Amino acid sequence: MSQSLAFPDAAYSVKTTSRPLRVAIFGFGTVGRSVARILVESAPAGLELTHIFNRNVHRKRVDWVPSSVAWSSDADALLGSAEDAPDVILELAGGLEPAGDWVRKALAAGKSVITANKKLIAYHGLELEAIAAAHGSRLLYGAAVAGGIPVIPGLENGLSGDRVERVEGILNGTCNFILSKMEAGAEYGAVLAEAQGMGYAEADPTEDVGGFDARAKLAILIRLALRAQVHPDEIETCSITEVSAIDFSYAKDLNCTIRQIARAERIDGHLAATVRPMLVPLVSPLAWSRGTENMVITTGHYGGDVVFSGHGAGGHPTAVAVVSDLLGLAHGSCRIAIPSTPSKVGTELEVPHYIRFMVNDRPGIVAGIASALAHEKINLNAILQKPGYPLDRLPFVVTVEPCRTSALKRALQEIGRMPALLEKPLDLQILEK
Amino acid sequence: MSQSLAFPDAAYSVKTTSRPLRVAIFGFGTVGRSVARILVESAPAGLELTHIFNRNVHRKRVDWVPSSVAWSSDADALLGSAEDAPDVILELAGGLEPAGDWVRKALAAGKSVITANKKLIAYHGLELEAIAAAHGSRLLYGAAVAGGIPVIPGLENGLSGDRVERVEGILNGTCNFILSKMEAGAEYGAVLAEAQGMGYAEADPTEDVGGFDARAKLAILIRLALRAQVHPDEIETCSITEVSAIDFSYAKDLNCTIRQIARAERIDGHLAATVRPMLVPLVSPLAWSRGTENMVITTGHYGGDVVFSGHGAGGHPTAVAVVSDLLGLAHGSCRIAIPSTPSKVGTELEVPHYIRFMVNDRPGIVAGIASALAHEKINLNAILQKPGYPLDRLPFVVTVEPCRTSALKRALQEIGRMPALLEKPLDLQILEK
Repeated sequence: MSQSLAFPDAAYSVKTTSRPLRVAIFGFGTVGRSVARILVESAPAGLELTHIFNRNVHRKRVDWVPSSVAWSSDADALLGSAEDAPDVILELAGGLEPAGDWVRKALAAGKSVITANKKLIAYHGLELEAIAAAHGSRLLYGAAVAGGIPVIPGLENGLSGDRVERVEGILNGTCNFILSKMEAGAEYGAVLAEAQGMGYAEADPTEDVGGFDARAKLAILIRLALRAQVHPDEIETCSITEVSAIDFSYAKDLNCTIRQIARAERIDGHLAATVRPMLVPLVSPLAWSRGTENMVITTGHYGGDVVFSGHGAGGHPTAVAVVSDLLGLAHGSCRIAIPSTPSKVGTELEVPHYIRFMVNDRPGIVAGIASALAHEKINLNAILQKPGYPLDRLPFVVTVEPCRTSALKRALQEIGRMPALLEKPLDLQILEK
Repeated sequence: MSQSLAFPDAAYSVKTTSRPLRVAIFGFGTVGRSVARILVESAPAGLELTHIFNRNVHRKRVDWVPSSVAWSSDADALLGSAEDAPDVILELAGGLEPAGDWVRKALAAGKSVITANKKLIAYHGLELEAIAAAHGSRLLYGAAVAGGIPVIPGLENGLSGDRVERVEGILNGTCNFILSKMEAGAEYGAVLAEAQGMGYAEADPTEDVGGFDARAKLAILIRLALRAQVHPDEIETCSITEVSAIDFSYAKDLNCTIRQIARAERIDGHLAATVRPMLVPLVSPLAWSRGTENMVITTGHYGGDVVFSGHGAGGHPTAVAVVSDLLGLAHGSCRIAIPSTPSKVGTELEVPHYIRFMVNDRPGIVAGIASALAHEKINLNAILQKPGYPLDRLPFVVTVEPCRTSALKRALQEIGRMPALLEKPLDLQILEK
C-alpha cells in the first residue's frame, strides 16, 4: 500500500469564460471600497473590475483604483445591454430602493447580481430569484447574513443533508457591542454614544436596537435553514432598550448574561421566531461573543449543533463574502437551490422566563404574582431581590419554569392590574442549553 | 417604498436529471448506516439509493432498507458501466486501499464519487481530482474534515475571497475527549480505556493520539485554506501521550489548558505546520471544546478570524456532510476549484513555549537551563515549581517568550546533556491569542 504522493500540475484548473467577467460595484461606501480593495490587491483571474457606480460619484473617486475602471453616476447605462456594460452587478448600496430596482433590471437583462442587502433579500428574495430563473441570470447573497462568516454557504452546501430544527444567533453587531459593554458595567446611553462615535451605530439606532436588522437576517436564515418562507414583519421583535443595568446584575446571579438573540424553531409542526434580548447561560457559546461579533448556531436532527462565529459586519469581512460569491460565479460554481414553503410564524414557545418587576413595595405583591402565575399553571422557580433599593421603587425578579408564551402573557396581563406595579414588567426568555 | 411580500410558487425549483441519480453506498459501517438512514427517512427528490456494497454483505443486511436496494459484495460489477449500475459512489469504507482503487475506477468510468476518506484525499486528492477532470466526473469530500461541520464548504464557497493566513483547530475527537477528561482530573490510561469502551478510540489508538489522523485532515485544510499542496508525512506530529496530569496542573496556573492542536501558518513566505499537544489560553475558543467536539479557526488577511465548531465525528454528523454533497450533485451545483501550488512544509515558528523538566534536584540546574537559553538569546519568562514532589523526582516548568523553534531545539539539546535531567523535557508550544 503506497503512500507516495503524485501531484499532477494542472489538477485544479480554473474555469474561465472566453473573456473576463466585467464587474460593476454599485455603491462605493465602506463595503464597496473594501470589495474594490480586495479586487485590486488580489486581481483574481477570470474577472475584471470595470465600473464603480455611485450618486455624485466624483465625491467618491480614489486614486488607488486602476485608471481602467470607469466611474459613473448613470445606473441605467450600466444596467443596459451595451457591449461594454458589466456582466455582474455587486449591489452594495443597501436599502429596498433604488437597490431593488437596479437588481430587478440587472437580472432581467441577464446579468448576475451579488448583493449584501439583507433587507432586499428578506423582503423580496423569492421574487428576485424568480426573475433570475426566468432570465437565466444568477443571484447570490452570501454576505447578507453574518457578513464574513460563511453561514449561508455552510447551510446551502454543508448542512442541506440535515433537517435543521432550530437556528439561533447573534445577528446584529451593534446590539452585541452595546450589551457586552453593559455586561461589563456600562450604561446604555453612554455605550450607544460610544458605538455611534465608532461608526458601529447609526444616529437613529432603531433598526439595530429595535431588532429590525436582525429580523431581516433571521427571515433569510429561516428560509435556508428551516425551509420556510416567512414575511419578516411577522417575526416578533422586542427592543434591547428596555434592559437596564439591574438586569445584568440579576442575570449574573443566575449564571447568565443578556444578548439580543434571533431565534427560530420548529415545534410540533409550527414555526416560532423572535428577535429579543434574552438571558443566555454563561456556558452557552452565545454568551462568549464580545463586541461586534456575530454567531449562528444551527441544530440539526441528525448532525446536532454547529456553531459559526466571527466578524459579522464591517467593510472587509462583508467584502470577503461578496468576493467569494464573485469567485464562485467566475469559476462556474452554482448554488444549491434549497426548496422552501410558505409558512406562518408564531411566538408560541415553551421556555423558562425571567420577569423583572418594579414596584412600590407593600404586602401582598408576591402573593398576587404567585397567584396569577398559578392560575395559568405556571411554576414559579425563584424570587430574587437585591438589597439596597428604595422600597417605593423596588426592582425584583421572578423566574418561572418552562411555560407557554400565551399563558405567561395572560398571567402578566393579570399582574399588570396590580396597583403596586410602577412599570410594565420586563419579560425575558431564558435560553436553555 | 413597498415592503409587501410576493412569494412566487416555484421560486426554488430543484433541478433534476431526467431520471433519479442511482446511488451506491460502499462500506456499511457506522457512517454508511447513517447515510442510508437519512436517505431512507428523507427520500430526497432526484436521487435513489440503489446499492449497498460491503465485504460479506449478508452479515450487514438490515430490515429498514427498502427491498428495492440491492446488497452486493461485488465491487467491480457496481463500478462498471452496466445499465443498472450506480451513477454515484459514496465511498465510506475508509483507508487507502481498496477504497482508492474503487474511487479511481468509479471516476474513470464517469461516475461521481463522494467520500468521507480524509486519508485518501490527503495523500491522493490531487491525483483523484485529475482523474475526475479527465473523465468529466466529480469528486466531493465535504465530510473528510471535521465531519458534520461545514468547514470545507465554508472555505470553498464563503472564504475563497479572503487570503487565509492561518488555520488551526481541533481535528481529532478522540484526543479532545481524552485531554478534556484529563483537564477534569482523569489519568490518561483510564480515559483511553473509557474512550475505547465508548467506541471513540481504536484498540490501537496510535492514529489518533499520535496525531496522524489530524495530520491528514490538516493537509486537506492547508490545500483549501492556504492553497498549498503538501505531503501529509512532512507535517511534524507529536503524540499526546507525553502529557501528564502535572502538565494540566501547571497549565491551569498559566490560565491555560492543553489540547491537541493542528496548526498551519504562512510566515514570511514559508509554510509551517504541526500537530501537537499545545497550551491553549482559557480565553481561546479552542479551550472551550469539550468531549469529541471539533473546531476550526481560520484567520484571513481581510476577514479576520472565523470559528466553526460542532460534532466532527460520529455516524450521523459525518453522514450529514455526505448527504449534503450528494444533494449538491443532484441539484446540479458544482465545487469552486481552489487553485493551489506545491509547497514544502517546515516547523519554524516564533511562539512562546512551556517546557516541563523532570530532575533529580541539585544546585545549579536553573542556572544551567537559564544559561543554555541565554546562549540562544531566548528570554526566560517564568519558572514554576509546585510544592509536594520528592526532590529526587522533581517536576518544574519554565516558560519562554516567543522564540524560533530551531533556537529552542538547540538550547534543549544542550540542556539535555545535564546529568540532573531524569527524562527528555516536555516542550509544548503556547498558543497565542
